[in-house]
Amino acid sequence: MASSLENLSLESKEVNNEDDVVNPWNVCSKSKTGIDYDKLIRRFGSSKIDDNLLSRIEAATKKPVHHFLKRGIFFSHRDLYSILNLYEQGKSFYLYTGRGPSSNSLHIGHLIPFIFTKWLQDAFNVPLVIQLTDDEKYLWKDLTIEEAKRLSVENAKDIIACGFDKKKTFIFSDLQFIGECPSFYANVIRIQKSVTFNQVKGIFGFGDSDVIGKIAFPAVQAAPCLSSTFPFIFGNEKVPCLVPCAIDQDPYFRMTRDVAPKLGFSKPALIHSSFLPSLQGADTKMSASDLNSSIYLRDTPKEIKNKINKYAFSGGQETVELHREKGGDCNVDISYQYLKHFLESDEELIKIEKAYTSGKMLTGELKKILIESISKIVQEHQTNRSKITDDDVKEFMTPRKLS
Amino acid sequence: MASSLENLSLESKEVNNEDDVVNPWNVCSKSKTGIDYDKLIRRFGSSKIDDNLLSRIEAATKKPVHHFLKRGIFFSHRDLYSILNLYEQGKSFYLYTGRGPSSNSLHIGHLIPFIFTKWLQDAFNVPLVIQLTDDEKYLWKDLTIEEAKRLSVENAKDIIACGFDKKKTFIFSDLQFIGECPSFYANVIRIQKSVTFNQVKGIFGFGDSDVIGKIAFPAVQAAPCLSSTFPFIFGNEKVPCLVPCAIDQDPYFRMTRDVAPKLGFSKPALIHSSFLPSLQGADTKMSASDLNSSIYLRDTPKEIKNKINKYAFSGGQETVELHREKGGDCNVDISYQYLKHFLESDEELIKIEKAYTSGKMLTGELKKILIESISKIVQEHQTNRSKITDDDVKEFMTPRKLS
Repeated sequence: MASSLENLSLESKEVNNEDDVVNPWNVCSKSKTGIDYDKLIRRFGSSKIDDNLLSRIEAATKKPVHHFLKRGIFFSHRDLYSILNLYEQGKSFYLYTGRGPSSNSLHIGHLIPFIFTKWLQDAFNVPLVIQLTDDEKYLWKDLTIEEAKRLSVENAKDIIACGFDKKKTFIFSDLQFIGECPSFYANVIRIQKSVTFNQVKGIFGFGDSDVIGKIAFPAVQAAPCLSSTFPFIFGNEKVPCLVPCAIDQDPYFRMTRDVAPKLGFSKPALIHSSFLPSLQGADTKMSASDLNSSIYLRDTPKEIKNKINKYAFSGGQETVELHREKGGDCNVDISYQYLKHFLESDEELIKIEKAYTSGKMLTGELKKILIESISKIVQEHQTNRSKITDDDVKEFMTPRKLS
Repeated sequence: MASSLENLSLESKEVNNEDDVVNPWNVCSKSKTGIDYDKLIRRFGSSKIDDNLLSRIEAATKKPVHHFLKRGIFFSHRDLYSILNLYEQGKSFYLYTGRGPSSNSLHIGHLIPFIFTKWLQDAFNVPLVIQLTDDEKYLWKDLTIEEAKRLSVENAKDIIACGFDKKKTFIFSDLQFIGECPSFYANVIRIQKSVTFNQVKGIFGFGDSDVIGKIAFPAVQAAPCLSSTFPFIFGNEKVPCLVPCAIDQDPYFRMTRDVAPKLGFSKPALIHSSFLPSLQGADTKMSASDLNSSIYLRDTPKEIKNKINKYAFSGGQETVELHREKGGDCNVDISYQYLKHFLESDEELIKIEKAYTSGKMLTGELKKILIESISKIVQEHQTNRSKITDDDVKEFMTPRKLS
C-alpha cells in the first residue's frame, strides 16, 4: 500500500533538471530563495502541516505549539494524525531521531531537529531513541572506525546538552550498539530480507560500483523504527514510532514505511523540517564540512560575530539610500532567516521583519541582533555541554528501561 | 594482487555448459563419476595437495596425516605452505570453519569438515572458531529468525559431539554473536566498505532483484578470517587464519583473500574438501533437504540399513554372473565411495577395493560392510551427542580466552 501512495524513488533522479536536489547526501536549490518546499511535498507525496493539524497538536498536548511549527520550519508530515489519534486514545508512541557524526562539533543547523525533538518529548512525555550512525559516516567518508566512534561520543555530548531527559532518552552508536543488542541485528537482517537492490537503487540512486556496505546501510537506519529493536525499553509491545527529521532523510523512511507492515509493525510517522541555509545563501544548507558556511556550537563569540558580518548573505540594498527607499528582502536575507529559526518571540520577529522590509532597519543592525541571539544560544549550549561528563554519556548510552 | 592470481568470479557463470557447477548454493556434475576436481583446481586457481605437501604436514605435526588427506578427500589448498612455514618458525595460527544451520540434524557429509578440523586442531594444537551462519539461512531459506537461532543450537550440539576441545574452541551464531561483539560488526562494515556490488555480482552471481541482505552477507562469512574479530581470543595480535571447508565455499574466501591485505591482515589460507556424494550417485552432493539422498546423524540403524540397501547407487554389474566376470566399478559405486571417506583402515579399504573390482565381492556384501561402518559412526555420534547439555553449548558459545 505504501508503494502506491508514496513515491518511493529518489526524487532527484526522476524530476527534471530545474528542480531542487534533496536527498540524504545532497541538498541544493536552483533558486536564490532556496528549496521550494511546497513543490517538495508534492514530489515526495507527504502532507503539509496546516492550521488544523497545529490545533490538533495543541489540543493533544494542552500546550501552545513550538515556534518551529508555527513558522513552518517543521512543515511536512506523514501519518501524524494517526499518532495523535492513538495518543488521544491514551496509547503511547516513541520518538526516533538521529545524527551522522561526521565532525567534532555540531553546527547550529543540527540543533533544529534536537530542539524540536526535545519539545516533542516534553509535550507528549514519551520515550526517545537517538541513533548515531557512525557506521554510515565510516562508509561514506574517509574515516576510520575508531574515529567514527570517537565522533559519536563527541556528538552525543552536544546532543545531551540540548537538555534531553536521561530517564526518557536512549542514545546509541550503531558501531557499538549493534554489537551489544542481538535484537537490533535481527531487525536489520529482517529488513535486509525485505528490500531488493532494485529498490535501494530506485530510492537512493545506488549503482553497481557502490560498496555493499552502502547498499546494506538503509536497513540500519530503518531498524530503530521497529520497537522490537529495543526490547529493554518496550518489552514485547509493538509501539508506534514518530520520526522528527530534516526532509532529506525522508527516502530512508519511505523505504521503512514500505517494509514495516510486512514485518508486522505500523508505518513510522514522520514530521519533516526544512533546512537551515548556509551563511552564503538559501540555495544550500549549512554543512558541517564547510567551515565558512556554518556557525559551530564550539565557535567563540568573536568567530560568530566575524562569520555573520563577513559571510551572512544580505537581502539589503546596495547602498544605505537605496535600502531606506526599497527596504530589505527577508526571503533571501540569511540573518532574518536565522532569526526566524532561533528568535523565540513572535512579537520581536514581526517587529524586525517590518523594520527591515520597510528599510528602517539596516543590514548591519539586523546582523547585530542575530549575533547577539546566536551568541547567547551557543554560549548557553557550551555551558551546558561543559557539564556533560563521560559518565553522563555512558548512562544515556546504556540499554535500559526508560520511564 | 589476489585478483590477478586468483579467479575471483563465480566459476559457473564463466565456464561453458559442459562444466560442473560448484558454488555455495549449487553443486552439480554433468558426469556420472562426479565433479572433475583437477579441472576445478585449474578453474578456481587453487593448488593441488601433493605428496610433497603431505610430507611437510607430517614433518610439522610429527604425526601421520589423516586419511582424508592421504585419500585426496581434502585435495586442494591456498597458501598452506605459508601456514606451515610460520608454524615451523614457532608462530601460531587459528582455524575457522562453519556451517549454515538449515535442518535439525546434520548428515554424515557434514561430518567431514568437522572430523578433519578436529584432526587439524589436535595435530597443530591451535584455537578454532566455528561460525553458524543462521543469518545466511534466514536470508536464503523460508525460515524465521527464531527458527534459524534454534537450529543453530541444535547443530552446535552435533558439532560439539565431534569431540572438539572446549578449551580451544569457540562456536558462535551470527544472529547472536554480532549482537554481543562490536568488533565483529566493525569488521563486517570494514569488509563491506572494501567490496562493491560489481564484485559480489561477479563472484556470487547476485542480481538487481536480490535482497540487500544477500548482497551484504559475504562480509559476515569473511569477517572471522580477521583475528581482530575475536579480541577476547587474540587480543591485539594479528594471527593468520586457516579455513578448512568444502570447495563450494571457496568464492567467499576468494573475496576475503582480496580484501584482507587492504585491511592489514594476511590472506586466509584454505584447505578444500571434495563433496560426499548423495546416495543416488556421484553427480550431486548429499543434501540436508533431500531425505532420501542423505544419511542423517539422527537416523536409526534400521533407517541407515534401508536407505543404503534401497538407494546407494551401485557400481556392480546387472547380474551376479556378469559381476563375477567383469567386477564392480568403485569410481561410481556409492558404497565404496562412502567407505573411502569413513573406513579408517587403509588395509581393509584396499582389500575391499580389490575384491569388489575383481568381482569377488558382490554389491550386497559391500553394502553390508558400509551399513556396519556407518551405523557404528552414527551410533557413536548419537551417544556423544546425548551427553551434550545446554550448558555445554552455552560454554562453547561464550566469548572467552582460548588456551
